[in-house]
Amino acid sequence: MSDFKLTILGSGSAMPTPERFSSAHVLNVHGHLYLIDCGEGAQIAMKKYNIKMNKIEAIFISHLHGDHYFGLIGLLNSMHLNNRKKELNLYCFKPLDDIIKLQIEAANTQLSYKIKYNYLSEEGLVKLFDSKHVEVFSFPLIHRIPCCGFLFKEKKQSRNIKKEFVKNHNIPKEWFPKILSGQDFIDENGNVFSNNEIVNFQLNPRSYAYCSDTAYDEKVADYCMGVKLLYHEASFADDLEDVAKEKFHSTASQAALIARKSKAETLIIGHFSNRYKDKSLLINQAKQIFESTIEAYDGKVFEL
Amino acid sequence: MSDFKLTILGSGSAMPTPERFSSAHVLNVHGHLYLIDCGEGAQIAMKKYNIKMNKIEAIFISHLHGDHYFGLIGLLNSMHLNNRKKELNLYCFKPLDDIIKLQIEAANTQLSYKIKYNYLSEEGLVKLFDSKHVEVFSFPLIHRIPCCGFLFKEKKQSRNIKKEFVKNHNIPKEWFPKILSGQDFIDENGNVFSNNEIVNFQLNPRSYAYCSDTAYDEKVADYCMGVKLLYHEASFADDLEDVAKEKFHSTASQAALIARKSKAETLIIGHFSNRYKDKSLLINQAKQIFESTIEAYDGKVFEL
Repeated sequence: MSDFKLTILGSGSAMPTPERFSSAHVLNVHGHLYLIDCGEGAQIAMKKYNIKMNKIEAIFISHLHGDHYFGLIGLLNSMHLNNRKKELNLYCFKPLDDIIKLQIEAANTQLSYKIKYNYLSEEGLVKLFDSKHVEVFSFPLIHRIPCCGFLFKEKKQSRNIKKEFVKNHNIPKEWFPKILSGQDFIDENGNVFSNNEIVNFQLNPRSYAYCSDTAYDEKVADYCMGVKLLYHEASFADDLEDVAKEKFHSTASQAALIARKSKAETLIIGHFSNRYKDKSLLINQAKQIFESTIEAYDGKVFEL
Repeated sequence: MSDFKLTILGSGSAMPTPERFSSAHVLNVHGHLYLIDCGEGAQIAMKKYNIKMNKIEAIFISHLHGDHYFGLIGLLNSMHLNNRKKELNLYCFKPLDDIIKLQIEAANTQLSYKIKYNYLSEEGLVKLFDSKHVEVFSFPLIHRIPCCGFLFKEKKQSRNIKKEFVKNHNIPKEWFPKILSGQDFIDENGNVFSNNEIVNFQLNPRSYAYCSDTAYDEKVADYCMGVKLLYHEASFADDLEDVAKEKFHSTASQAALIARKSKAETLIIGHFSNRYKDKSLLINQAKQIFESTIEAYDGKVFEL
């Protein structure tokens, strides 16, 4: 099956630590890499977890609080030092363009590639782009400054014959359309290979939603309805619901409620306040409401 | 003896790696902390090496290439989250002030403390400040954009009686001036304590010079004449002297020549190009010219 794989580069909150860098996720859809938020040290984490920075096709920055983008300028600079040529799509709020340009100018540098700035809006579910393999949407979150979540939906894939099978068997040309239309393959010795075993196909497209920083908002569940993997911030434990509301953040149970309402398959929570040395308190609170809850940590990989 | 201690937070060059973050040094002079350059991840390294960020009294940024300051905005933001109140002195080139202000504004934040911007000039040895315990100077380096090195000179310390001795002995009041003027102390039982053993004094003030990024320039040796500890970049091995010149950087031997000419006691080299997996080549080349050469690495502490 083609890749649909999430790597968490940073799972911490406002102040990065050696154990938990600030928010940054990389989603690999069929070999195409998308970076979602880019906290300080994201490029260092990419080296650590073997993510090739110049393979990133687009970057999505949810909002302009530093723990979600202070690593971006360093990454853009390193892409330049690595002689990137391919245009980079950046989805963000203003004035991130000015912030980047000012720093590039101060270094008296001209980047080796072009950045295309695409500005986010907070008007409901907005399609950001549509490629052969994925559609990406933004949706508004409730935070102290303009903030968006992102939804990645895999497109239905046409069938393809497993590469390994093609390599190991001498398949006559005329058999390819038959196999792709659903027939079993019979080789020259009369061996029968079931179509299911030799063909890749994806009945249920996979999807990933990322909710960086947000107060509890049931609308988020609508935007993410039916998502396979949902990341939702859970800065605080339930006893600090008032603090969460005041700071436009969520509790563990609130994240779990959104997962339940959206009928997600799996919930990842992260962006934990540094006050929690042991995160199991937050995980357990979420699990009471949504059993399939997993803790985000730096270096964690989810393959769907 | 009072502290005069250097901690290296980042010893790498343009592209940070998990093993070597970009340039950042912390100098502790008698308990007062000074941060010199602030590459990406410096605040994370501070947590790792137990440097208290809110104890930093002033920050010196040598120039506006990202590997020397991309960690600054994150650190300033975390100082705010830690509720710093004390004014912070920042020594830098323009437009670092604009770069910082734009990012603080984008986050809709007002810092809990004031930053005082002090702009560097490239006109020879310039005294930046003068406190009870240290004088700090800037001096020009030769780089692609305006760039300064920094020289920290400890002030001559007046004598003081060792705290431990005062605590453990009942010293009559009238003895204090006598001991401080050089007399041995005789207690009530007639025991004699040699002045040398009970008094702290610093005959030779300690000093540290930091040369971040520079082409080979003999004037640097004049600015740093007689320095105890010299940090000089050594981006390249000797066979790449032409590349070093073209990129306004130095080779290992050039760093060593500056150490020899300035009659430094010890040379630290760092800012190694990532092409050198093993840094011993560069260390050995420097040692041929200046024996007392040490490799900079992340977390290294030098106590003078």
